[in-house]
Amino acid sequence: MARLDWTADAVRNGGVYERGCAIERQGQVIPGVVWYPAASSGPRPLVLLGHGGSGHKRNERMVLLGQMFAGDYGWYAAAIDGPVHGERGPVSDANEPAYRQMWQRPEAVQEMIDDWKATLEALSTLSALDSTRVGYWGVSMGTMFGLPYVASDPRVRVAVLGKAGMSGPSVQRSGIDTHFKTFAPRVTVPVLFVMQWDDERFDREGQLELFDQLGAQDKRLHAYPGQHADNGPESFEVAADFLKRYLEPIEA
Amino acid sequence: MARLDWTADAVRNGGVYERGCAIERQGQVIPGVVWYPAASSGPRPLVLLGHGGSGHKRNERMVLLGQMFAGDYGWYAAAIDGPVHGERGPVSDANEPAYRQMWQRPEAVQEMIDDWKATLEALSTLSALDSTRVGYWGVSMGTMFGLPYVASDPRVRVAVLGKAGMSGPSVQRSGIDTHFKTFAPRVTVPVLFVMQWDDERFDREGQLELFDQLGAQDKRLHAYPGQHADNGPESFEVAADFLKRYLEPIEA
Repeated sequence: MARLDWTADAVRNGGVYERGCAIERQGQVIPGVVWYPAASSGPRPLVLLGHGGSGHKRNERMVLLGQMFAGDYGWYAAAIDGPVHGERGPVSDANEPAYRQMWQRPEAVQEMIDDWKATLEALSTLSALDSTRVGYWGVSMGTMFGLPYVASDPRVRVAVLGKAGMSGPSVQRSGIDTHFKTFAPRVTVPVLFVMQWDDERFDREGQLELFDQLGAQDKRLHAYPGQHADNGPESFEVAADFLKRYLEPIEA
Repeated sequence: MARLDWTADAVRNGGVYERGCAIERQGQVIPGVVWYPAASSGPRPLVLLGHGGSGHKRNERMVLLGQMFAGDYGWYAAAIDGPVHGERGPVSDANEPAYRQMWQRPEAVQEMIDDWKATLEALSTLSALDSTRVGYWGVSMGTMFGLPYVASDPRVRVAVLGKAGMSGPSVQRSGIDTHFKTFAPRVTVPVLFVMQWDDERFDREGQLELFDQLGAQDKRLHAYPGQHADNGPESFEVAADFLKRYLEPIEA
Protein backbone atom coordinates (compact mmCIF):
# COMPACT_ATOMS: atom_id res chain seq x y z
CA MET A 1 0.00 0.00 0.00
CA ALA A 2 1.52 3.30 -1.13
CA ARG A 3 1.46 6.18 1.32
CA LEU A 4 1.22 9.93 0.68
CA ASP A 5 3.12 12.29 2.98
CA TRP A 6 3.03 16.04 2.60
CA THR A 7 6.59 17.37 2.83
CA ALA A 8 5.81 21.09 2.86
CA ASP A 9 3.03 23.54 3.44
CA ALA A 10 0.91 24.41 0.45
CA VAL A 11 2.03 27.53 -1.42
CA ARG A 12 -0.63 29.61 -3.11
CA ASN A 13 -0.10 31.19 -6.53
CA GLY A 14 -3.25 32.90 -7.80
CA GLY A 15 -6.08 30.41 -7.59
CA VAL A 16 -3.76 27.41 -7.33
CA TYR A 17 -2.09 25.62 -4.43
CA GLU A 18 1.19 23.81 -5.03
CA ARG A 19 2.35 21.36 -2.39
CA GLY A 20 5.36 19.08 -2.13
CA CYS A 21 4.81 15.46 -1.20
CA ALA A 22 6.50 12.10 -0.99
CA ILE A 23 5.05 8.76 -1.99
CA GLU A 24 6.41 5.72 -0.22
CA ARG A 25 6.57 2.49 -2.18
CA GLN A 26 8.17 -0.56 -0.57
CA GLY A 27 10.56 1.53 1.48
CA GLN A 28 11.52 3.76 -1.45
CA VAL A 29 10.52 7.42 -1.45
CA ILE A 30 9.26 9.06 -4.66
CA PRO A 31 9.41 12.88 -4.48
CA GLY A 32 6.31 14.52 -5.88
CA VAL A 33 4.36 17.74 -6.20
CA VAL A 34 0.64 18.34 -6.42
CA TRP A 35 -1.24 21.34 -7.85
CA TYR A 36 -4.89 21.85 -6.98
CA PRO A 37 -7.50 24.59 -7.19
CA ALA A 38 -7.87 26.86 -4.16
CA ALA A 39 -11.63 26.86 -4.67
CA SER A 40 -13.09 23.45 -5.46
CA SER A 41 -16.59 22.10 -5.71
CA GLY A 42 -16.90 18.34 -5.56
CA PRO A 43 -14.30 15.72 -6.51
CA ARG A 44 -12.03 16.88 -9.32
CA PRO A 45 -10.24 14.99 -12.12
CA LEU A 46 -6.48 14.37 -11.88
CA VAL A 47 -3.79 14.67 -14.55
CA LEU A 48 -0.44 12.96 -13.96
CA LEU A 49 2.46 14.92 -15.50
CA GLY A 50 5.57 13.12 -16.74
CA HIS A 51 8.56 15.43 -17.26
CA GLY A 52 11.14 15.17 -20.05
CA GLY A 53 14.74 13.95 -20.00
CA SER A 54 16.99 16.09 -17.76
CA GLY A 55 13.94 17.83 -16.31
CA HIS A 56 12.29 17.36 -12.96
CA LYS A 57 8.92 17.50 -11.23
CA ARG A 58 9.00 21.28 -10.84
CA ASN A 59 10.64 22.35 -14.09
CA GLU A 60 9.14 25.17 -16.11
CA ARG A 61 6.86 22.97 -18.22
CA MET A 62 5.52 21.04 -15.22
CA VAL A 63 4.72 24.24 -13.32
CA LEU A 64 3.10 25.78 -16.40
CA LEU A 65 0.86 22.75 -16.90
CA GLY A 66 0.16 22.25 -13.20
CA GLN A 67 -0.90 25.89 -12.90
CA MET A 68 -3.01 25.69 -16.08
CA PHE A 69 -4.78 22.44 -15.23
CA ALA A 70 -5.51 23.51 -11.64
CA GLY A 71 -6.11 27.22 -12.31
CA ASP A 72 -7.94 27.24 -15.64
CA TYR A 73 -9.61 23.81 -15.50
CA GLY A 74 -10.04 23.21 -11.77
CA TRP A 75 -8.28 19.83 -11.83
CA TYR A 76 -5.66 18.19 -9.65
CA ALA A 77 -2.28 17.72 -11.30
CA ALA A 78 0.73 15.83 -10.00
CA ALA A 79 4.33 15.29 -11.07
CA ILE A 80 7.06 13.03 -9.71
CA ASP A 81 10.79 13.02 -10.33
CA GLY A 82 11.94 10.44 -12.84
CA PRO A 83 14.71 8.02 -11.87
CA VAL A 84 18.07 9.80 -11.41
CA HIS A 85 16.24 13.12 -12.05
CA GLY A 86 15.36 15.99 -9.70
CA GLU A 87 15.58 14.98 -6.04
CA ARG A 88 16.40 11.49 -7.25
CA GLY A 89 19.41 13.08 -9.08
CA PRO A 90 22.06 13.52 -10.33
CA VAL A 91 20.90 14.05 -13.95
CA SER A 92 20.31 17.63 -15.04
CA ASP A 93 21.52 17.19 -18.63
CA ALA A 94 20.61 14.34 -20.95
CA ASN A 95 24.24 14.14 -22.09
CA GLU A 96 25.40 13.06 -18.62
CA PRO A 97 26.56 9.44 -18.32
CA ALA A 98 23.98 8.80 -15.60
CA TYR A 99 21.21 9.43 -18.13
CA ARG A 100 22.54 6.80 -20.51
CA GLN A 101 23.14 4.42 -17.60
CA MET A 102 19.52 4.82 -16.51
CA TRP A 103 18.36 3.34 -19.83
CA GLN A 104 20.88 0.51 -19.60
CA ARG A 105 19.10 -0.85 -16.53
CA PRO A 106 16.51 -3.21 -18.02
CA GLU A 107 14.21 -2.78 -15.02
CA ALA A 108 14.07 1.05 -15.27
CA VAL A 109 10.80 1.14 -17.23
CA GLN A 110 9.02 -1.35 -14.98
CA GLU A 111 10.17 0.53 -11.87
CA MET A 112 8.76 3.80 -13.23
CA ILE A 113 5.49 2.03 -14.06
CA ASP A 114 5.38 0.92 -10.43
CA ASP A 115 6.26 4.41 -9.22
CA TRP A 116 3.35 5.90 -11.15
CA LYS A 117 0.97 3.20 -9.93
CA ALA A 118 2.01 3.91 -6.34
CA THR A 119 1.63 7.65 -6.92
CA LEU A 120 -1.90 7.26 -8.22
CA GLU A 121 -2.77 4.90 -5.38
CA ALA A 122 -1.46 7.38 -2.81
CA LEU A 123 -3.20 10.37 -4.42
CA SER A 124 -6.48 8.47 -4.60
CA THR A 125 -6.76 8.78 -0.83
CA LEU A 126 -7.47 12.51 -1.26
CA SER A 127 -11.22 12.97 -0.95
CA ALA A 128 -11.30 16.10 -3.14
CA LEU A 129 -9.90 14.08 -6.02
CA ASP A 130 -12.03 11.89 -8.31
CA SER A 131 -9.87 8.83 -8.89
CA THR A 132 -12.22 7.57 -11.59
CA ARG A 133 -11.24 10.51 -13.83
CA VAL A 134 -7.49 10.30 -14.32
CA GLY A 135 -5.47 11.45 -17.32
CA TYR A 136 -1.77 11.38 -18.18
CA TRP A 137 0.30 14.04 -19.95
CA GLY A 138 3.93 13.42 -20.88
CA VAL A 139 6.07 13.77 -24.02
CA SER A 140 9.63 12.76 -24.85
CA MET A 141 10.92 11.00 -21.69
CA GLY A 142 7.40 11.58 -20.37
CA THR A 143 6.28 9.18 -23.11
CA MET A 144 9.27 6.83 -22.88
CA PHE A 145 8.18 6.05 -19.31
CA GLY A 146 4.57 7.19 -19.64
CA LEU A 147 3.45 5.11 -22.60
CA PRO A 148 4.39 1.85 -20.82
CA TYR A 149 2.69 3.18 -17.68
CA VAL A 150 -0.54 4.19 -19.44
CA ALA A 151 -0.59 0.74 -21.08
CA SER A 152 -0.24 -0.87 -17.65
CA ASP A 153 -2.69 1.03 -15.45
CA PRO A 154 -6.38 0.80 -16.40
CA ARG A 155 -7.16 3.63 -13.97
CA VAL A 156 -5.70 6.08 -16.51
CA ARG A 157 -8.56 6.94 -18.88
CA VAL A 158 -6.97 9.29 -21.40
CA ALA A 159 -3.43 10.29 -22.36
CA VAL A 160 -1.42 12.96 -24.15
CA LEU A 161 1.79 11.36 -25.45
CA GLY A 162 4.34 12.13 -28.15
CA LYS A 163 7.73 13.54 -29.12
CA ALA A 164 8.98 9.96 -29.18
CA GLY A 165 9.15 7.13 -31.66
CA MET A 166 10.68 3.94 -32.95
CA SER A 167 13.87 5.43 -34.42
CA GLY A 168 16.35 8.27 -34.10
CA PRO A 169 19.35 9.14 -31.90
CA SER A 170 17.34 9.05 -28.65
CA VAL A 171 16.17 5.54 -29.50
CA GLN A 172 19.69 4.34 -30.17
CA ARG A 173 20.78 5.69 -26.80
CA SER A 174 17.85 4.33 -24.80
CA GLY A 175 16.67 1.19 -26.56
CA ILE A 176 13.14 2.41 -25.86
CA ASP A 177 11.83 0.92 -29.14
CA THR A 178 11.80 -2.50 -27.47
CA HIS A 179 9.45 -1.20 -24.78
CA PHE A 180 7.32 0.71 -27.28
CA LYS A 181 6.89 -2.47 -29.36
CA THR A 182 5.59 -4.23 -26.25
CA PHE A 183 3.42 -1.52 -24.79
CA ALA A 184 2.11 0.60 -27.70
CA PRO A 185 -0.46 -2.02 -28.82
CA ARG A 186 -1.66 -2.20 -25.21
CA VAL A 187 -2.53 1.51 -25.07
CA THR A 188 -6.27 1.38 -25.64
CA VAL A 189 -7.51 4.59 -24.00
CA PRO A 190 -8.08 7.73 -26.09
CA VAL A 191 -4.74 9.27 -27.03
CA LEU A 192 -3.54 12.58 -28.41
CA PHE A 193 -0.07 12.00 -29.88
CA VAL A 194 1.88 15.20 -30.53
CA MET A 195 5.02 15.38 -32.62
CA GLN A 196 7.43 17.89 -34.09
CA TRP A 197 7.81 17.56 -37.84
CA ASP A 198 11.58 18.17 -37.83
CA ASP A 199 12.45 16.39 -34.56
CA GLU A 200 16.20 15.71 -34.48
CA ARG A 201 16.03 13.19 -31.62
CA PHE A 202 13.15 10.98 -32.72
CA ASP A 203 12.85 10.93 -36.51
CA ARG A 204 9.63 11.60 -38.38
CA GLU A 205 9.13 8.08 -39.72
CA GLY A 206 9.67 6.51 -36.32
CA GLN A 207 7.16 8.81 -34.64
CA LEU A 208 4.53 8.10 -37.29
CA GLU A 209 5.24 4.39 -36.78
CA LEU A 210 4.73 4.68 -33.03
CA PHE A 211 1.41 6.49 -33.56
CA ASP A 212 0.45 3.74 -35.99
CA GLN A 213 1.23 1.03 -33.42
CA LEU A 214 -0.90 2.52 -30.62
CA GLY A 215 -3.69 0.07 -29.90
CA ALA A 216 -6.28 2.78 -29.26
CA GLN A 217 -9.15 3.01 -31.73
CA ASP A 218 -9.70 6.59 -30.59
CA LYS A 219 -6.42 8.37 -31.29
CA ARG A 220 -5.25 11.44 -33.13
CA LEU A 221 -1.85 12.75 -34.24
CA HIS A 222 -1.02 16.46 -34.06
CA ALA A 223 2.16 17.52 -35.85
CA TYR A 224 3.77 20.96 -35.80
CA PRO A 225 6.83 22.27 -37.66
CA GLY A 226 10.00 22.57 -35.63
CA GLN A 227 12.52 20.58 -33.68
CA HIS A 228 12.24 18.47 -30.55
CA ALA A 229 12.13 21.33 -28.05
CA ASP A 230 9.70 23.45 -30.09
CA ASN A 231 5.94 23.43 -29.61
CA GLY A 232 2.96 24.43 -31.70
CA PRO A 233 1.54 27.84 -30.71
CA GLU A 234 -1.71 26.37 -29.37
CA SER A 235 -0.45 22.88 -28.50
CA PHE A 236 -0.84 23.04 -24.70
CA GLU A 237 -4.28 24.61 -24.93
CA VAL A 238 -5.36 21.97 -27.46
CA ALA A 239 -4.01 19.18 -25.25
CA ALA A 240 -5.95 20.55 -22.27
CA ASP A 241 -9.14 20.76 -24.34
CA PHE A 242 -8.57 17.18 -25.46
CA LEU A 243 -8.18 15.96 -21.87
CA LYS A 244 -11.27 17.90 -20.88
CA ARG A 245 -13.43 16.10 -23.46
CA TYR A 246 -12.70 12.81 -21.71
CA LEU A 247 -12.32 13.94 -18.09
CA GLU A 248 -15.42 16.12 -18.15
CA PRO A 249 -17.63 14.64 -20.85
CA ILE A 250 -20.73 16.65 -21.68
CA GLU A 251 -23.72 14.69 -20.45
CA ALA A 252 -26.18 13.80 -23.20
CA MET B 1 -16.77 43.67 -60.61
CA ALA B 2 -18.62 40.68 -59.18
CA ARG B 3 -22.22 41.19 -58.16
CA LEU B 4 -24.24 39.53 -55.40
CA ASP B 5 -27.93 38.83 -56.02
CA TRP B 6 -30.18 37.24 -53.43
CA THR B 7 -32.19 34.50 -55.13
CA ALA B 8 -34.51 33.64 -52.25
CA ASP B 9 -35.81 34.97 -48.97
CA ALA B 10 -33.75 34.17 -45.89
CA VAL B 11 -34.90 31.05 -44.04
CA ARG B 12 -34.41 31.00 -40.29
CA ASN B 13 -33.26 27.85 -38.46
CA GLY B 14 -32.70 28.53 -34.75
CA GLY B 15 -30.40 31.52 -34.46
CA VAL B 16 -29.18 31.23 -38.05
CA TYR B 17 -30.42 32.63 -41.36
CA GLU B 18 -29.68 30.71 -44.56
CA ARG B 19 -30.14 32.53 -47.84
CA GLY B 20 -29.61 31.51 -51.45
CA CYS B 21 -27.64 33.85 -53.70
CA ALA B 22 -25.98 34.12 -57.06
CA ILE B 23 -22.67 35.72 -57.83
CA GLU B 24 -22.20 37.06 -61.33
CA ARG B 25 -18.72 36.94 -62.80
CA GLN B 26 -18.21 38.04 -66.39
CA GLY B 27 -21.67 36.94 -67.43
CA GLN B 28 -21.41 33.58 -65.64
CA VAL B 29 -23.59 32.87 -62.62
CA ILE B 30 -22.16 31.08 -59.60
CA PRO B 31 -24.91 29.64 -57.35
CA GLY B 32 -24.20 30.22 -53.66
CA VAL B 33 -25.64 30.11 -50.17
CA VAL B 34 -24.88 32.26 -47.14
CA TRP B 35 -25.41 31.48 -43.46
CA TYR B 36 -25.37 34.31 -40.93
CA PRO B 37 -26.36 34.90 -37.33
CA ALA B 38 -29.87 36.22 -36.70
CA ALA B 39 -28.50 38.44 -33.95
CA SER B 40 -25.29 40.21 -34.83
CA SER B 41 -23.26 42.94 -33.20
CA GLY B 42 -20.73 44.62 -35.41
CA PRO B 43 -19.01 43.25 -38.52
CA ARG B 44 -18.48 39.49 -38.36
CA PRO B 45 -15.77 37.21 -39.80
CA LEU B 46 -16.53 35.08 -42.86
CA VAL B 47 -15.63 31.46 -43.57
CA LEU B 48 -15.78 30.22 -47.16
CA LEU B 49 -16.83 26.55 -47.37
CA GLY B 50 -15.61 24.33 -50.21
CA HIS B 51 -17.63 21.13 -50.63
CA GLY B 52 -16.23 17.70 -51.56
CA GLY B 53 -16.41 15.77 -54.83
CA SER B 54 -20.00 14.87 -55.83
CA GLY B 55 -21.33 17.20 -53.12
CA HIS B 56 -22.88 20.62 -53.49
CA LYS B 57 -23.24 23.93 -51.69
CA ARG B 58 -26.09 22.71 -49.48
CA ASN B 59 -25.03 19.14 -48.78
CA GLU B 60 -25.14 17.80 -45.24
CA ARG B 61 -21.58 18.84 -44.31
CA MET B 62 -21.97 22.36 -45.69
CA VAL B 63 -25.23 22.90 -43.79
CA LEU B 64 -23.73 21.47 -40.60
CA LEU B 65 -20.72 23.79 -40.81
CA GLY B 66 -22.74 26.81 -41.94
CA GLN B 67 -25.11 26.33 -39.01
CA MET B 68 -22.22 25.82 -36.58
CA PHE B 69 -20.14 28.77 -37.73
CA ALA B 70 -23.11 31.13 -37.80
CA GLY B 71 -25.00 29.72 -34.80
CA ASP B 72 -22.23 28.83 -32.36
CA TYR B 73 -19.57 31.32 -33.45
CA GLY B 74 -21.60 34.21 -34.86
CA TRP B 75 -19.75 34.26 -38.17
CA TYR B 76 -20.85 34.51 -41.78
CA ALA B 77 -20.32 31.35 -43.82
CA ALA B 78 -20.75 30.88 -47.55
CA ALA B 79 -20.63 27.97 -49.98
CA ILE B 80 -20.77 27.83 -53.78
CA ASP B 81 -21.36 24.92 -56.13
CA GLY B 82 -18.20 23.53 -57.67
CA PRO B 83 -17.99 23.20 -61.45
CA VAL B 84 -20.42 20.57 -62.79
CA HIS B 85 -21.72 20.14 -59.20
CA GLY B 86 -25.03 21.14 -57.60
CA GLU B 87 -26.93 23.69 -59.69
CA ARG B 88 -23.96 23.69 -62.03
CA GLY B 89 -24.54 19.89 -62.42
CA PRO B 90 -24.76 17.16 -63.56
CA VAL B 91 -22.30 15.44 -61.13
CA SER B 92 -23.82 13.80 -58.08
CA ASP B 93 -21.38 10.87 -57.92
CA ALA B 94 -17.61 11.08 -58.29
CA ASN B 95 -17.68 7.99 -60.51
CA GLU B 96 -19.65 9.81 -63.21
CA PRO B 97 -17.73 10.57 -66.43
CA ALA B 98 -18.47 14.29 -66.01
CA TYR B 99 -16.39 14.31 -62.81
CA ARG B 100 -13.35 12.90 -64.57
CA GLN B 101 -13.92 15.24 -67.51
CA MET B 102 -13.95 18.22 -65.16
CA TRP B 103 -10.38 17.44 -64.13
CA GLN B 104 -9.31 16.96 -67.74
CA ARG B 105 -10.02 20.62 -68.46
CA PRO B 106 -6.68 22.29 -67.67
CA GLU B 107 -8.41 25.59 -66.84
CA ALA B 108 -10.78 24.08 -64.24
CA VAL B 109 -8.61 25.01 -61.25
CA GLN B 110 -8.01 28.59 -62.39
CA GLU B 111 -11.71 29.07 -63.08
CA MET B 112 -12.60 27.94 -59.58
CA ILE B 113 -9.95 30.28 -58.15
CA ASP B 114 -11.66 33.08 -60.06
CA ASP B 115 -15.09 31.94 -58.87
CA TRP B 116 -13.99 32.11 -55.24
CA LYS B 117 -12.36 35.51 -55.76
CA ALA B 118 -15.57 36.82 -57.29
CA THR B 119 -17.60 35.29 -54.45
CA LEU B 120 -15.50 37.01 -51.81
CA GLU B 121 -15.61 40.29 -53.72
CA ALA B 122 -19.40 40.09 -53.94
CA LEU B 123 -19.84 39.12 -50.28
CA SER B 124 -17.55 41.93 -49.18
CA THR B 125 -20.26 44.40 -50.12
CA LEU B 126 -22.30 43.20 -47.11
CA SER B 127 -21.81 45.75 -44.35
CA ALA B 128 -22.38 43.23 -41.53
CA LEU B 129 -19.42 41.22 -42.77
CA ASP B 130 -15.81 42.02 -41.87
CA SER B 131 -13.94 41.34 -45.10
CA THR B 132 -10.58 41.68 -43.34
CA ARG B 133 -11.29 38.49 -41.35
CA VAL B 134 -11.83 35.73 -43.88
CA GLY B 135 -11.11 32.03 -43.49
CA TYR B 136 -11.45 29.02 -45.77
CA TRP B 137 -12.61 25.50 -44.88
CA GLY B 138 -12.52 22.70 -47.44
CA VAL B 139 -11.18 19.13 -47.58
CA SER B 140 -10.90 16.57 -50.37
CA MET B 141 -12.23 18.38 -53.50
CA GLY B 142 -12.58 21.38 -51.18
CA THR B 143 -8.77 21.30 -50.97
CA MET B 144 -8.15 20.31 -54.58
CA PHE B 145 -9.78 23.61 -55.59
CA GLY B 146 -9.36 25.39 -52.27
CA LEU B 147 -5.61 25.07 -51.80
CA PRO B 148 -4.89 26.79 -55.13
CA TYR B 149 -7.49 29.42 -54.21
CA VAL B 150 -6.08 30.10 -50.74
CA ALA B 151 -2.62 30.39 -52.32
CA SER B 152 -3.98 32.94 -54.80
CA ASP B 153 -6.11 35.27 -52.67
CA PRO B 154 -4.30 37.25 -49.97
CA ARG B 155 -7.66 38.24 -48.47
CA VAL B 156 -7.96 34.73 -47.01
CA ARG B 157 -6.13 34.82 -43.67
CA VAL B 158 -6.44 31.26 -42.38
CA ALA B 159 -7.40 27.88 -43.85
CA VAL B 160 -8.52 24.39 -42.91
CA LEU B 161 -7.42 22.01 -45.66
CA GLY B 162 -6.79 18.28 -45.97
CA LYS B 163 -7.98 14.85 -47.07
CA ALA B 164 -5.87 15.33 -50.18
CA GLY B 165 -2.30 14.70 -51.22
CA MET B 166 0.32 14.06 -53.84
CA SER B 167 -0.53 10.41 -54.58
CA GLY B 168 -3.34 7.88 -54.57
CA PRO B 169 -6.25 6.92 -56.88
CA SER B 170 -7.89 10.37 -56.69
CA VAL B 171 -4.63 11.95 -57.80
CA GLN B 172 -4.29 9.61 -60.76
CA ARG B 173 -7.83 10.51 -61.84
CA SER B 174 -7.48 14.26 -61.40
CA GLY B 175 -3.83 15.11 -61.96
CA ILE B 176 -4.19 17.48 -59.01
CA ASP B 177 -0.57 16.84 -57.92
CA THR B 178 0.60 19.21 -60.65
CA HIS B 179 -1.49 22.02 -59.16
CA PHE B 180 -0.48 21.14 -55.59
CA LYS B 181 3.20 21.31 -56.59
CA THR B 182 2.62 24.81 -57.91
CA PHE B 183 0.36 26.19 -55.21
CA ALA B 184 1.29 24.43 -51.93
CA PRO B 185 4.53 26.41 -51.43
CA ARG B 186 2.49 29.61 -52.00
CA VAL B 187 0.13 28.88 -49.10
CA THR B 188 1.63 31.08 -46.41
CA VAL B 189 -1.33 31.75 -44.09
CA PRO B 190 -1.86 29.62 -40.96
CA VAL B 191 -3.16 26.18 -41.95
CA LEU B 192 -4.76 23.26 -40.19
CA PHE B 193 -4.30 20.20 -42.42
CA VAL B 194 -6.54 17.28 -41.50
CA MET B 195 -6.08 13.76 -42.82
CA GLN B 196 -7.42 10.25 -42.36
CA TRP B 197 -4.72 7.75 -41.51
CA ASP B 198 -6.16 4.98 -43.72
CA ASP B 199 -7.44 7.13 -46.60
CA GLU B 200 -8.06 4.92 -49.63
CA ARG B 201 -8.27 7.82 -52.12
CA PHE B 202 -5.25 9.89 -51.15
CA ASP B 203 -2.54 7.70 -49.65
CA ARG B 204 -0.82 8.42 -46.36
CA GLU B 205 2.61 9.24 -47.76
CA GLY B 206 1.19 11.63 -50.34
CA GLN B 207 -0.85 13.51 -47.73
CA LEU B 208 2.17 13.87 -45.46
CA GLU B 209 4.12 15.12 -48.47
CA LEU B 210 1.49 17.74 -49.27
CA PHE B 211 1.53 18.95 -45.66
CA ASP B 212 5.32 19.09 -45.89
CA GLN B 213 5.16 21.22 -49.05
CA LEU B 214 2.82 23.86 -47.61
CA GLY B 215 4.74 27.13 -47.51
CA ALA B 216 3.17 28.25 -44.22
CA GLN B 217 5.48 28.54 -41.23
CA ASP B 218 2.44 28.28 -38.99
CA LYS B 219 0.83 24.96 -39.86
CA ARG B 220 -0.30 21.83 -38.09
CA LEU B 221 -1.34 18.35 -39.19
CA HIS B 222 -4.18 16.51 -37.47
CA ALA B 223 -4.53 12.83 -38.34
CA TYR B 224 -7.31 10.47 -37.30
CA PRO B 225 -7.75 6.74 -37.89
CA GLY B 226 -10.20 5.78 -40.61
CA GLN B 227 -10.89 6.08 -44.30
CA HIS B 228 -11.54 9.06 -46.54
CA ALA B 229 -15.16 9.63 -45.52
CA ASP B 230 -14.52 9.19 -41.79
CA ASN B 231 -13.80 12.02 -39.38
CA GLY B 232 -12.24 12.32 -35.94
CA PRO B 233 -14.84 12.62 -33.18
CA GLU B 234 -13.89 16.21 -32.36
CA SER B 235 -12.48 17.23 -35.74
CA PHE B 236 -15.09 19.85 -36.71
CA GLU B 237 -15.05 21.43 -33.27
CA VAL B 238 -11.25 21.54 -33.31
CA ALA B 239 -11.25 23.09 -36.78
CA ALA B 240 -13.69 25.77 -35.64
CA ASP B 241 -11.55 26.54 -32.59
CA PHE B 242 -8.52 26.79 -34.86
CA LEU B 243 -10.28 29.26 -37.16
CA LYS B 244 -11.44 31.24 -34.15
CA ARG B 245 -7.86 31.73 -32.91
CA TYR B 246 -7.05 33.60 -36.11
CA LEU B 247 -10.39 35.20 -36.94
CA GLU B 248 -10.99 36.44 -33.40
CA PRO B 249 -7.53 36.80 -31.88
CA ILE B 250 -7.49 37.59 -28.18
CA GLU B 251 -6.24 41.14 -27.79
CA ALA B 252 -3.09 41.41 -25.69
